[in-house]
Amino acid sequence: MTRLSPSPATPSSDPGADTVVMLGLAAEFEFEAFVRLAGDAAAAPSIQERQVIARSAVRALERQERLVERITALGGDPAEAMAPFDGVVQDFEERTTAGSWSERLLKAFIGYAVADDFLRLLAEGTDPETRELVAGLLGDEAHTELVVAQLSQVLADDVAASRLALWGRRLVGDALAVIQGTIVRHPAFGRLLAAAGPGESEDRVQRVFAALTAEHTRRMERLGLTA
Amino acid sequence: MTRLSPSPATPSSDPGADTVVMLGLAAEFEFEAFVRLAGDAAAAPSIQERQVIARSAVRALERQERLVERITALGGDPAEAMAPFDGVVQDFEERTTAGSWSERLLKAFIGYAVADDFLRLLAEGTDPETRELVAGLLGDEAHTELVVAQLSQVLADDVAASRLALWGRRLVGDALAVIQGTIVRHPAFGRLLAAAGPGESEDRVQRVFAALTAEHTRRMERLGLTA
Repeated sequence: MTRLSPSPATPSSDPGADTVVMLGLAAEFEFEAFVRLAGDAAAAPSIQERQVIARSAVRALERQERLVERITALGGDPAEAMAPFDGVVQDFEERTTAGSWSERLLKAFIGYAVADDFLRLLAEGTDPETRELVAGLLGDEAHTELVVAQLSQVLADDVAASRLALWGRRLVGDALAVIQGTIVRHPAFGRLLAAAGPGESEDRVQRVFAALTAEHTRRMERLGLTA
Repeated sequence: MTRLSPSPATPSSDPGADTVVMLGLAAEFEFEAFVRLAGDAAAAPSIQERQVIARSAVRALERQERLVERITALGGDPAEAMAPFDGVVQDFEERTTAGSWSERLLKAFIGYAVADDFLRLLAEGTDPETRELVAGLLGDEAHTELVVAQLSQVLADDVAASRLALWGRRLVGDALAVIQGTIVRHPAFGRLLAAAGPGESEDRVQRVFAALTAEHTRRMERLGLTA
């Protein structure tokens, strides 16, 4: 992470344009989460789980639709805003292949949670309405509860628990790497992070990663896993 | 089709049990349609189309949830009812692989429409409430409009139009073959068709295929294609 070279946070002529970039990432992310969760639902080992995960997929699409509306309200073009982030979830997916259903469940859970946290941090640099929208939309308590309930059974087995803890550490590394690449490629994100808090750009990015890692550690503890 | 040997329509001790078998097929079909449409949305060539198809996916899941409720209301177990039909859409999917986006669009459109018609015919042999539910749920006008609008552009080209007409004929053959296999494997469907109309079982099945083919021809004409 220390080798990270974010784009210099040069002021944008239009802060609204940076907000639209962030909303484009959020909307594309939610759309791809919808597709991926629909596929997860099909692979779920029981009907109960598949119904819960299918509903999570629908909620991701509903969030995406709200984000698309906000892009339009800010005068942005949703298709243009989302296009640069095409494949953002796939990038994360391809880094590591989940073996078991537990690994797959944990992968979606960790990946989406880290992405949510990152989007919330970016949104702190936007207008109050967008900030509130993003803070309110993200997170999916029903999905979290499913993951916690499912994994708690698996985690009764110590060997499985330590394997999943290792898997969790790999996943958060992958998620942070994808986020790092996103920050480097999109100067708008450097500016939004600058608007959210003072400091040199390198420090700011370090703070973002520290915040994301802290949140991840809390989540892993909730699951009973060592982060 | 003339070689078809449906199970003899011996009366079931409990007509409600046959209804639950039909609802199990309908619910499984809608669930798999949801998964498949979510994948289609991801492959759509434009953002507008992907949003429309993603919404079609959500509607398929909503229909499935209504069907699952009805299974429960009739004292059935949704997981047990759906299980025998696991892979029903996949069976259709694997018979022919769509090349272009137009072919893929037409494939979902034709396959789902034929399945809807078949489910409606089966529902005619069930109780009035189930019949009304199935008749009201099926069909997706927004999805139809998208397909009609999209394909009308492609069909301006005569060569493309005759290729798609040929593709449509293959697809309806595949759809009818899947339905035929389903009738043969599940005696409940023979009984529901018997309850819906008189005649020998072989004649009844012939009538079903005639009805499905007639509906298909009307749909192809609406698209401007020769069935």
